[in-house]
Amino acid sequence: MSAVDFTRFVHDLASRSGEAILPFFRTAMLTHNKAGDGGFDPVTEGDRAAEMVMRRMIRETFPAHGIVGEEFGSESADAEFVWVLDPIDGTRAFVSGLPVWGTLIGLMRSGHPAFGLMHQPFTRERFWGDGQSARYLGPEGERALHTRACADLAAATVMTTSPNLFRPKDRKLYDRVEKQARLARYGCDCYAYCMLAAGHVDLVIEAGLQPYDIVALIPVIEGAGGVVTTWDGGPAAEGGRIIASGDRRIHEAALRLLGA
Amino acid sequence: MSAVDFTRFVHDLASRSGEAILPFFRTAMLTHNKAGDGGFDPVTEGDRAAEMVMRRMIRETFPAHGIVGEEFGSESADAEFVWVLDPIDGTRAFVSGLPVWGTLIGLMRSGHPAFGLMHQPFTRERFWGDGQSARYLGPEGERALHTRACADLAAATVMTTSPNLFRPKDRKLYDRVEKQARLARYGCDCYAYCMLAAGHVDLVIEAGLQPYDIVALIPVIEGAGGVVTTWDGGPAAEGGRIIASGDRRIHEAALRLLGA
Repeated sequence: MSAVDFTRFVHDLASRSGEAILPFFRTAMLTHNKAGDGGFDPVTEGDRAAEMVMRRMIRETFPAHGIVGEEFGSESADAEFVWVLDPIDGTRAFVSGLPVWGTLIGLMRSGHPAFGLMHQPFTRERFWGDGQSARYLGPEGERALHTRACADLAAATVMTTSPNLFRPKDRKLYDRVEKQARLARYGCDCYAYCMLAAGHVDLVIEAGLQPYDIVALIPVIEGAGGVVTTWDGGPAAEGGRIIASGDRRIHEAALRLLGA
Repeated sequence: MSAVDFTRFVHDLASRSGEAILPFFRTAMLTHNKAGDGGFDPVTEGDRAAEMVMRRMIRETFPAHGIVGEEFGSESADAEFVWVLDPIDGTRAFVSGLPVWGTLIGLMRSGHPAFGLMHQPFTRERFWGDGQSARYLGPEGERALHTRACADLAAATVMTTSPNLFRPKDRKLYDRVEKQARLARYGCDCYAYCMLAAGHVDLVIEAGLQPYDIVALIPVIEGAGGVVTTWDGGPAAEGGRIIASGDRRIHEAALRLLGA
């Protein structure tokens, strides 16, 4: 199986999952609360429909591969190739009608993120990469993705989904970075990492991520020339507290402020 | 001049301004800082190009009309009909590559907002209204806009561009509403008011707005069945501290928390 064939298959997964999700976007529907009494984490029918479509396609095409999905758990997670799926990353954006959620499709090989794609079916945008290079396809055509240079935190735009999602101790650490940055933008989940890969923003800092929230994005960020680690500089694929930077110089500066 | 003719003309303004702006979206460029040393308020070439196009079209078609624009000031602001223009509302989103900015085109008649349109040229979406009704045109077609019912703040989704944009006293008042709401979403400028008109969110609360930030949105919100006022319940067209609600019941509840 060559990398080219994987790419085509991943794009097929994106197309089919997008078709499954879009009929549910901006329609009134019941959601049930996955997080229980505490948080607010809506799960839509689109989420489940899209993951079922992708799981079926993977099982049919690559029966030996494992699958880890947000909605339906893990199967053969110790296989050489494991797909890591989040049909709707950014469910809060989704239920608020905002086009900054995305479908995350990652492929791990021997425990390392090998390929990833983010699909935004409403804006018809795809961002994908293999750790060596990354590309974008949107309404205006296809092009390579490159992060932008940013030598100094004082010139950086930093993004996070919401400062309220941090625990108090982590919030204080995050605030140290935000205070030094030029501009902070909130509210974008996976879309923020793709804007970083495309060279529009410089830092994305989050906490409490699951592996399926970040695995697909790692080969895109690294393929575009960026760096993504945990707050203490470790590998990002396990999730947790994550920081991505377009330029290694501000990554190291931000890690120092985050206490690493 | 009938309302129908105004509608067609406003859509022409949107199309032409969008053509002027889009070449500048997601391209690296120098921005200069309109706000001076303090804030960060980038002005792009697209902003200026689009306002020049719209001003020329208005002058040619309606030479007796007045114009108030974000970029190039006021002319004949005491005329019966006055156009209120903000080519790129949400410049911070724009420079961060995020498709949640919009072009605002408002028409005042005898001092009252009579017609308004928000255009997002990248997602190809338009939201417009005349205070009696409101409509949406997007990739999936055209439909009427209606706010959704929400009887209780505890069930409401509230949006604001950024909680950091409030002055400390206003931040405390805003926080009283956010604490009672089910979900808060940040980061959308004019796009938030359009999601309210479309029935996806319930409250939008902001401060420090200019007239050109809100005039075009008033006929859309009211035409969709919503209500928009200042925090003390006064008319919204002058800007300042603004609250929009999809349901009058939570509007009154939120006004009480905001100190009115």
